[in-house]
Amino acid sequence: MPIRDGDYVLLVGDGVRSVIKVTRGSRVSTIRGVINADSIIGLEYGSTVRTNLGYEIAVLRPLITDMLLERADRVTQVIYPKDAAQIIVSSGIGPGSRVADAGVGSGFMTAMLAYYVRPTGRVYGYDKRDDAIRIARKNLEMLGLLEWVELRLRDVSTEGFLENDLDAVILDMGDPWNAIPNATRALRPDGVLIVYVPTINQVIKVLNTLHEVGYVDVKMVDVTVREWKTEPSEIRPQTWVNAHTGYLIISRRTLRTTTEPAK
Amino acid sequence: MPIRDGDYVLLVGDGVRSVIKVTRGSRVSTIRGVINADSIIGLEYGSTVRTNLGYEIAVLRPLITDMLLERADRVTQVIYPKDAAQIIVSSGIGPGSRVADAGVGSGFMTAMLAYYVRPTGRVYGYDKRDDAIRIARKNLEMLGLLEWVELRLRDVSTEGFLENDLDAVILDMGDPWNAIPNATRALRPDGVLIVYVPTINQVIKVLNTLHEVGYVDVKMVDVTVREWKTEPSEIRPQTWVNAHTGYLIISRRTLRTTTEPAK
Amino acid sequence: MPIRDGDYVLLVGDGVRSVIKVTRGSRVSTIRGVINADSIIGLEYGSTVRTNLGYEIAVLRPLITDMLLERADRVTQVIYPKDAAQIIVSSGIGPGSRVADAGVGSGFMTAMLAYYVRPTGRVYGYDKRDDAIRIARKNLEMLGLLEWVELRLRDVSTEGFLENDLDAVILDMGDPWNAIPNATRALRPDGVLIVYVPTINQVIKVLNTLHEVGYVDVKMVDVTVREWKTEPSEIRPQTWVNAHTGYLIISRRTLRTTTEPAK
Amino acid sequence: MPIRDGDYVLLVGDGVRSVIKVTRGSRVSTIRGVINADSIIGLEYGSTVRTNLGYEIAVLRPLITDMLLERADRVTQVIYPKDAAQIIVSSGIGPGSRVADAGVGSGFMTAMLAYYVRPTGRVYGYDKRDDAIRIARKNLEMLGLLEWVELRLRDVSTEGFLENDLDAVILDMGDPWNAIPNATRALRPDGVLIVYVPTINQVIKVLNTLHEVGYVDVKMVDVTVREWKTEPSEIRPQTWVNAHTGYLIISRRTLRTTTEPAK
Repeated sequence: MPIRDGDYVLLVGDGVRSVIKVTRGSRVSTIRGVINADSIIGLEYGSTVRTNLGYEIAVLRPLITDMLLERADRVTQVIYPKDAAQIIVSSGIGPGSRVADAGVGSGFMTAMLAYYVRPTGRVYGYDKRDDAIRIARKNLEMLGLLEWVELRLRDVSTEGFLENDLDAVILDMGDPWNAIPNATRALRPDGVLIVYVPTINQVIKVLNTLHEVGYVDVKMVDVTVREWKTEPSEIRPQTWVNAHTGYLIISRRTLRTTTEPAK
Repeated sequence: MPIRDGDYVLLVGDGVRSVIKVTRGSRVSTIRGVINADSIIGLEYGSTVRTNLGYEIAVLRPLITDMLLERADRVTQVIYPKDAAQIIVSSGIGPGSRVADAGVGSGFMTAMLAYYVRPTGRVYGYDKRDDAIRIARKNLEMLGLLEWVELRLRDVSTEGFLENDLDAVILDMGDPWNAIPNATRALRPDGVLIVYVPTINQVIKVLNTLHEVGYVDVKMVDVTVREWKTEPSEIRPQTWVNAHTGYLIISRRTLRTTTEPAK
Repeated sequence: MPIRDGDYVLLVGDGVRSVIKVTRGSRVSTIRGVINADSIIGLEYGSTVRTNLGYEIAVLRPLITDMLLERADRVTQVIYPKDAAQIIVSSGIGPGSRVADAGVGSGFMTAMLAYYVRPTGRVYGYDKRDDAIRIARKNLEMLGLLEWVELRLRDVSTEGFLENDLDAVILDMGDPWNAIPNATRALRPDGVLIVYVPTINQVIKVLNTLHEVGYVDVKMVDVTVREWKTEPSEIRPQTWVNAHTGYLIISRRTLRTTTEPAK
Repeated sequence: MPIRDGDYVLLVGDGVRSVIKVTRGSRVSTIRGVINADSIIGLEYGSTVRTNLGYEIAVLRPLITDMLLERADRVTQVIYPKDAAQIIVSSGIGPGSRVADAGVGSGFMTAMLAYYVRPTGRVYGYDKRDDAIRIARKNLEMLGLLEWVELRLRDVSTEGFLENDLDAVILDMGDPWNAIPNATRALRPDGVLIVYVPTINQVIKVLNTLHEVGYVDVKMVDVTVREWKTEPSEIRPQTWVNAHTGYLIISRRTLRTTTEPAK
């Protein structure tokens, strides 16, 4: 399928790396010169074009992670793909899963979930901030993933979830311990609860709560994805890396898990 | 749906953590005592049972990673879930993707791929060792994932792949540089090539080859997932961790990528 | 100076790596065969000897870290050289420093301190367990470092330190927050306090206490030293590493730091 | 000993952290207001002063690492304290050691070595660039460490070292493999060779050379010191860290080590 007017494409080459929207009649500026959008339309993905300065740039289909990191709007700190990957795989979330995500923030995690539960699953995204819901909706629309998502403006700690028997609930909020009783109600009896928090103060509160209300198989990990320079003559890790995002705490509900608030 | 004779279940509690197959009339030994399989059959997932010593054990649906790590047979070094997660998400592999995996080894990566390309995608698993193909088939069958996989006893470096226009090809073999020309032929023009190697000697050869034949957007990462002790009174990282598995090299084909062997 | 009867030597070669005491008339067994101690006596350090099976083994002066890791007795969890190195350098401890170390445990940290404050400094090692004091003394004697150390059987939390105006105090104990007021009394007005704890529960208590009593320039680090396989044909990190020992919390006293107990 | 005109002091408090030289009659600007140098002179270290805006700032003796990181001039990439600490401790370098350091660059490693070999050891610093020698001399003078160092403008790969029977030689240069034969000549027969390189391309060349010429007990490590935020209410690792500086390769000479160049 050739590239069409309105498609997003990933441009790569000679230091250029960006996702652009191809709009007939427009010009794309890069650090290696200018490309006419019209010269891209109709090409096969994987083609190369030349900038006006003569540099060769490849035109590729962006991956979902390219779209998120380069095109999505942000209203809050986002969950990075490395953590999303670990959350999804560690929780067994896959095609057909029914998952709640609270709060949605900018919708990065919601989008990754929607991508992986397709075509038969469903994601329920909660946030108490309407700007978050609005931005998340916009991002999901751009990514073509809104079809698999319900977005709900609602405080899950006080008002609860509208679903039950969910396969997994993800809590990404400042005070997740307050939402755990309602998350328990929303989960299937052996469902997976994932809590994502940045500080060890929060870790202690979450682990204490999980212990008290009776979650089992409690695991905690933090994920480091170290990026390398790949120039063949000088291979080495990047000097500066994002060394901390958050702690992932993954546990399982049982029929014995209480929905009473923890002390 | 209640637990049936023949199901696999995850037992968790008081230091017990194992996946067992429920077989009517059998007895399950744990470090906390014995459980009669018959007392599990018919229960809802999320129930708890008592061992003959009085310990409470939860009975849960195993996740795919539990099945792989606890029940799958191994014929070779395997790709761990942490790396599989990163490979899948970094390559945009998802429901509907068509992916080749060479070599399949014990089939861990193949299984993770099959799980995530369901229900409309397909995985083509290659290995030149027939014991690998045999073990992988057995593992995929146990996991209920064989339906989405073609296994092929074939040396991709010398004989090539049978598919083309694939979304992604994963090379997990000792000499992946020798398979890159055939992988290029099998990929769609902007397809994703993932190479997984454990040593830096291999890293250098792979990066040199990718550079010479014209892959673009070459990225390399290594993934560390640090596990923590989650006992609320003594929270700390585990002392000993698996600190190195392999390097993930992810790159994109273009129409300019040559299928000539690198020098 | 040639190797003498009674010296410790490091044997290295073909998979052999151990520190042995050379005792006239004795035989040393290695995984590569036997060496007569008499054939080592009188050699220059750096010489090689042959085992009875024909393997060449180098005979080297052991470093202090070799002696600690291979010959010292252990009565408790020890501070590893990687952490000792970071503690010493981050605290400015060097030749001439006067330092207290509580508790001494097996004396590993005490020994490293003694090695680096020589010849004009002094280390005061405290422990409330007499088996710790006894083992530490034995280890320091073997290492030839006892001359620079005073060992004291005493509970610093309740009985305090006997010194004052110290350059640095190191607290390596289960409840270091209880010893901070006495450590403050023992330090010079701008002295360095180092606290070493394994869990984040302890981290929170220590940081709260330091904050309350008025320590400044509070830093916390954890140190990872990743070891690699160095076989030229297969260079890669070791698979299993000791990924967590403890957190180092380093801060400075001032004249405003209170010696009242924290709330 | 009170603070005198001309001393360096470390100012710490309310977000201020800097090393300044106290000069009678001068004013020190901080982000929390101005301090008159004269109000610092005569104070005891550990005192606090107030800025004109009323903030309390502690006045401390700077540690050697504070001086290096805040006051030393840089002409090249420097060896960081974390790596210097590991090099020194892993090599048994301490009071009395005789060590060569090539090249000296900005003199950071040379300074750390001088600090730790005092008062009876000696450091021989080599560089082929005269600006490096000049800057290193200036830094060592500022630190009061020049007394223990000989600086030599000389290319050790082609001209060799002037010493022999050294306890340790440190090679921190782009092509250390070319200097290994001369380093071997300069070391005592069981001396310690430390090579510090940033890329894995260099790692492979160094390990191959060490293997060919017969170094033993070859170890390689990389050191990560993760810094944390220490605000008691929000304890977490710093987000961005310097994740890669270089690889440390530490090995031992023997009498069998050849000084012929490697193939």
